Amino acid sequence: MTRRLADVSTSARLATPGEGLGQDELALAARNHGLPLEAMRYDITPPGLHYILTHYDIPHVPDDAAWRLTVNGRVRHPLSLSPAQLRTRPAVTTRVTLECAGNGRALLTPRPVSQPWLVEAVGTAEWTGVPLRLLLDEAGVASDAVDVVFTGADHGVERGVEQDYQRSLPLDIATGDEPEVLVAYAMNGQPLPPQHGSPLRLVVPGWYGMAHVKWLRDVTVVDTPFTGFQQSVAYRIRQGPEEAGEPVTRIAPRALLIPPGFPDFMSRTRVVAPGPVRLEGRAWSGRAPVTSVEVSTDSGATWHRAELEPDHGHRWAWRRWSRMWSPVPGTHVLSARAYDEAGNAQPLEQPWNRGGFANNLVQRVPVFCTDPTSR
Amino acid sequence: MTRRLADVSTSARLATPGEGLGQDELALAARNHGLPLEAMRYDITPPGLHYILTHYDIPHVPDDAAWRLTVNGRVRHPLSLSPAQLRTRPAVTTRVTLECAGNGRALLTPRPVSQPWLVEAVGTAEWTGVPLRLLLDEAGVASDAVDVVFTGADHGVERGVEQDYQRSLPLDIATGDEPEVLVAYAMNGQPLPPQHGSPLRLVVPGWYGMAHVKWLRDVTVVDTPFTGFQQSVAYRIRQGPEEAGEPVTRIAPRALLIPPGFPDFMSRTRVVAPGPVRLEGRAWSGRAPVTSVEVSTDSGATWHRAELEPDHGHRWAWRRWSRMWSPVPGTHVLSARAYDEAGNAQPLEQPWNRGGFANNLVQRVPVFCTDPTSR
Repeated sequence: MTRRLADVSTSARLATPGEGLGQDELALAARNHGLPLEAMRYDITPPGLHYILTHYDIPHVPDDAAWRLTVNGRVRHPLSLSPAQLRTRPAVTTRVTLECAGNGRALLTPRPVSQPWLVEAVGTAEWTGVPLRLLLDEAGVASDAVDVVFTGADHGVERGVEQDYQRSLPLDIATGDEPEVLVAYAMNGQPLPPQHGSPLRLVVPGWYGMAHVKWLRDVTVVDTPFTGFQQSVAYRIRQGPEEAGEPVTRIAPRALLIPPGFPDFMSRTRVVAPGPVRLEGRAWSGRAPVTSVEVSTDSGATWHRAELEPDHGHRWAWRRWSRMWSPVPGTHVLSARAYDEAGNAQPLEQPWNRGGFANNLVQRVPVFCTDPTSR
Repeated sequence: MTRRLADVSTSARLATPGEGLGQDELALAARNHGLPLEAMRYDITPPGLHYILTHYDIPHVPDDAAWRLTVNGRVRHPLSLSPAQLRTRPAVTTRVTLECAGNGRALLTPRPVSQPWLVEAVGTAEWTGVPLRLLLDEAGVASDAVDVVFTGADHGVERGVEQDYQRSLPLDIATGDEPEVLVAYAMNGQPLPPQHGSPLRLVVPGWYGMAHVKWLRDVTVVDTPFTGFQQSVAYRIRQGPEEAGEPVTRIAPRALLIPPGFPDFMSRTRVVAPGPVRLEGRAWSGRAPVTSVEVSTDSGATWHRAELEPDHGHRWAWRRWSRMWSPVPGTHVLSARAYDEAGNAQPLEQPWNRGGFANNLVQRVPVFCTDPTSR
């Protein structure tokens, strides 16, 4: 029997060995969704195919004109701006690959019980908005400022804590220009869809999704480190529940294949015919530019360099890569592995953490190549 | 070891008692997605929030202008039409609530292992296109015609059968005008998004989703009943695997609540404060117009009539309903129940079938009402 607000939440827990997904995890998986991997064929992910993770409900915003973004706290000139006022300021458009911090969680053993992602929590869009550094400059940040706290309109309970979704950035990131953080009002040239934060959201190129606060209504500059739930309880890399852990920040390198051929409905196993097949996919890293992608077609036994397209000026977006493959009849497992300029590489065995964050294990795509002589 | 194409498919099966969802079900749940229930607040579901179920991959259509819709078989004048040619014909726009035939499957015991839906596989859009009956009229249907077969461009394997997705309609439905079947090229006034069948799809108002063939490339009139996989193997109501079963056709009545208050992240339990709360939701039936909706706030012990909005001329779309509620502190379970003009009502216990189709069990929404005196 629920007697207190805290009782509506279950404790963070790990699945027991062999435990399948429960209805709580399914309720999240049915609401939220990943990118169907074949949609990596588009440079810009079409609306509705970009991954979505909503912690609580999508807020009801009946009238964009009534929305206000406030800039408060340790500033000399607090601001209160409508979306229309933001749109009169100098605009920047940046192509950004966004990935959920929990991508890959459902592949971990033991599995942290939360939104269950395999590998598909990713998408790329062009975000248009006002650089946050210009707004903070206009407001005049006090010299004792440490963190900048962002509050969304989405409201809920999480592990007993009633909250508006809130995250912070260190001042140097919030006012930096590499990446340039945006207060965005458009996605792919259109007003933000409700599920992507309409009318305003934060975009922090190169960082995992939890930093890109949706339905943004307040920016508060503070003089002590922010310790809100989503900063100090959730989104930490830790082994045990009592550890303080390390914050989740920038996206680790990852390459994904567009699964070749066609699928089986239920097993999703891919089917190809013998002969040349162009393997292609995308690779990205928020930590440093991707320098190379390797492909294996023999379950990781051998690796071969893929052809990597230049970034075409889009540092914060995924890059296309490809390599030809000539399968013979039988079963194969395909993988791709990204490396970045800072020396980061995707692991062949996934280091585990309790929240299931920042995973970037190499993908495995089982493929069956048909035998034309035996059909 | 996979040796034949048939081996890439697993057999249809039921989950064992207490068996959680497997990675195969999760792979479907992560690709496809339902409607976040709070999005029932919109008469027309915004793009990206409408439910999606793709059997295989979303086909790659690099050039809409090269697409052809052929009308073949038992017709006097076969047609081959580009999307542009279709757009020059008289257009009809119909508001349609679409629901997946497998909605509710994951709530069954035992659970059929397939795309796992709870209750959210629904959405409402305005579809614009050419009435199918006019195209069939133009082609001149032969007098011995029985069924009309629709072929999509999505290709895959299902239970060992390699196939393009194909479904048929009886001739009288295909040429009828109640409902009027459309070959649609626009959704909510925009070209179809890739995941909704770009450039052309079938829309069969009142029927479950499996009839609305996406990426439609061929219409063939046949003089014997169509027995393709999706018609005679899948989408049948049967108790045992050997039964022929009954075909899945029109949508059974259903009412869903917009969950009130705000949610817990993981349990999705709702939290409200004491005092008046407007309960609202949507109700629809493809079998006959909805005549009434009842609401229970005490776990189904008592039921009370909700206020049902008129259909505003949209026979094939969901209708809004509402009822005030004044919760007291403690736990409550909310339900809604729709009735239609043909005497169909939602069941309080779900009749079971092996494929998990055409479920319409009344929804249960657990709500915790806080106690202001004890916080």
